Amino acid sequence: MDTRHLVKPDGRSMTLYSRGQLDGDLTAPSPSLDTHAPNPHLRWHPLRGEWIAFAAHRQHRTFLPPAGYNPLAPSSSKHYSTEVPSGNWEAAVFDNLFPTFAATADSPPHLDVRTEPARGCCEVVVFTQDPSASLGALPLSRVELIVDVWADRYDVLGRRTDVLYVFPFENRGVEVGVTLQHPHGQIYGYPFVPPVAARALAQEHLYYEQHGRGLVEDLVAAEVRNQGRLVFRGRDVVAFMPVCARYAYELWVVPYRRVPSLAALTAAERHDFARALKTVLLKYDALWNRPFPYVLVIYQAPTDGVDHPDTHLRLELYPAYRMPHRLKYLAGSELGAGVFTADTVPEDTVKELQRVTVAVDD
Amino acid sequence: MDTRHLVKPDGRSMTLYSRGQLDGDLTAPSPSLDTHAPNPHLRWHPLRGEWIAFAAHRQHRTFLPPAGYNPLAPSSSKHYSTEVPSGNWEAAVFDNLFPTFAATADSPPHLDVRTEPARGCCEVVVFTQDPSASLGALPLSRVELIVDVWADRYDVLGRRTDVLYVFPFENRGVEVGVTLQHPHGQIYGYPFVPPVAARALAQEHLYYEQHGRGLVEDLVAAEVRNQGRLVFRGRDVVAFMPVCARYAYELWVVPYRRVPSLAALTAAERHDFARALKTVLLKYDALWNRPFPYVLVIYQAPTDGVDHPDTHLRLELYPAYRMPHRLKYLAGSELGAGVFTADTVPEDTVKELQRVTVAVDD
Repeated sequence: MDTRHLVKPDGRSMTLYSRGQLDGDLTAPSPSLDTHAPNPHLRWHPLRGEWIAFAAHRQHRTFLPPAGYNPLAPSSSKHYSTEVPSGNWEAAVFDNLFPTFAATADSPPHLDVRTEPARGCCEVVVFTQDPSASLGALPLSRVELIVDVWADRYDVLGRRTDVLYVFPFENRGVEVGVTLQHPHGQIYGYPFVPPVAARALAQEHLYYEQHGRGLVEDLVAAEVRNQGRLVFRGRDVVAFMPVCARYAYELWVVPYRRVPSLAALTAAERHDFARALKTVLLKYDALWNRPFPYVLVIYQAPTDGVDHPDTHLRLELYPAYRMPHRLKYLAGSELGAGVFTADTVPEDTVKELQRVTVAVDD
Repeated sequence: MDTRHLVKPDGRSMTLYSRGQLDGDLTAPSPSLDTHAPNPHLRWHPLRGEWIAFAAHRQHRTFLPPAGYNPLAPSSSKHYSTEVPSGNWEAAVFDNLFPTFAATADSPPHLDVRTEPARGCCEVVVFTQDPSASLGALPLSRVELIVDVWADRYDVLGRRTDVLYVFPFENRGVEVGVTLQHPHGQIYGYPFVPPVAARALAQEHLYYEQHGRGLVEDLVAAEVRNQGRLVFRGRDVVAFMPVCARYAYELWVVPYRRVPSLAALTAAERHDFARALKTVLLKYDALWNRPFPYVLVIYQAPTDGVDHPDTHLRLELYPAYRMPHRLKYLAGSELGAGVFTADTVPEDTVKELQRVTVAVDD
């Protein structure tokens, strides 16, 4: 994998990636030329016991793209001064123009609750130059490149002192609020370990102390033994609908081996991880013969300088629909009480995904 | 307040309420005559460390209402065998036909994670016989009746051994997934203290131990001192956009006095609570001159037989929109990491609600 680090005219970082050798003359364009110094802040929610991030500059976006303008398409005479250059790159990563976390955050307001600068970072990951592609529809070797990019960002961002947790995700589809349809994901570098990840880490740690084995290792072993909820069984990686799935078509992609991050996977494991991911994404799109909206998230060990031997990398997918044309809404019970209510059981819905056959190899 | 307890033909409970005296011949109809014995179950999510409720019967609803049929309208020749009778009742409460928690839950499946019967209850609260009204648009004395009904349900459900937490809420608007537009809310009686409530209770308890004062008491005092985020200031109750508001138009309605539940409010406090609630709901609808979709939730002390002297009743409102025509979507950061990202700050958005004047008194 060839990588090129560049700086945009407004000061933002950009890194280009390719399986082959990158052109020598690649540049980093930007739709905005003003010096980039966003200043988001955190407020402590004393009853939820968690940080809330406030990025008011996001609402007042000065940059309003004309209709048909795609800021994630390579800059050209048609798409002038976009976020990415023309040239032979295959994936691009750059600082979000409207970040919720930023290294420049400083001097939060004085309020009746604790506040902090919202340090950290928000990156955009452009999966391809092709606006009509999708992560799952990329050739397998290109999905593998994206896995390598996520692994590289885990290493690069993890070295920053203001980033304690590297969190890659993809929001796909207007149903989950996506406005730019060009295939892309995001990476948040949080300045703290976020609550959902912290909870899982604590559960994994406790389980390891009690059983001497990994919690996710044992979950995976049980799913493999049970077989009924599997959708992909590779040499190194498995994909399944977990027994505790909250969303009707929720799937997890997990290596058998207890590894703390994508960066810790071997090349063979990354290949199998990409194959598993491509398989489940193609199954999603084939299920109802339409692009399947979802939120994709990747849990890895915190980058807090401490070893996390009991932590097990996993990718989770939360589809927006619970049946054709029926969205799953989070409302009173989920938002207010934190109790997820499911109208289906995984043993039923997984069968629909198992029946779908897809061609994964290049 | 007059109340009448009835049993539906399928065995479900119903209670009718009125400020005046109820008719003698009220009956409890039902769209379904089959014996009601729902069997939802809980599965433990070992990484999130929380119960997930599975009610598969909800997906396979046998009862498909014809177009134009309103099951929450009083039964009549036009709306035959609905959920509520004709007669002079003003509010009605009954067991949900498709509950996520039920007293009849039994024999959960044996799985690779812990399971439990999803005991408890799910009630529907019909706010009025008028399908075109709304909670906020009811006369003040009728809003007060609903507060009294919520208080009564706290007492009645709280006495059940399978209900440890009584949680009234209203999902309002198609934007939050509501399919029945007739004004109504719900009450979940959870067989455990749900995670969000448990977290707040722990925070309140810790604060009380450390400061000898209530956490919410001090938050309210700070909001009153600050004044900038208030939208209603009554004799006993205040409404404000909290300094840590996550939603753009989030509001809380809270009594000054530290009381654990609606049932513990004095008559005067309930009156002021209703006035505060009606004020904020009317402000919502007046803001953009359209019905304002929201999730309304009420936090009270658990009904676990133990005193909760540090717990402070509060009603919270989570509006679906962050600006006109722009929904707030919960996606990667919120759903996956548990970190809420706000595009506005409360100090700005509260001004819009403060500017709206409304007429509250009967």
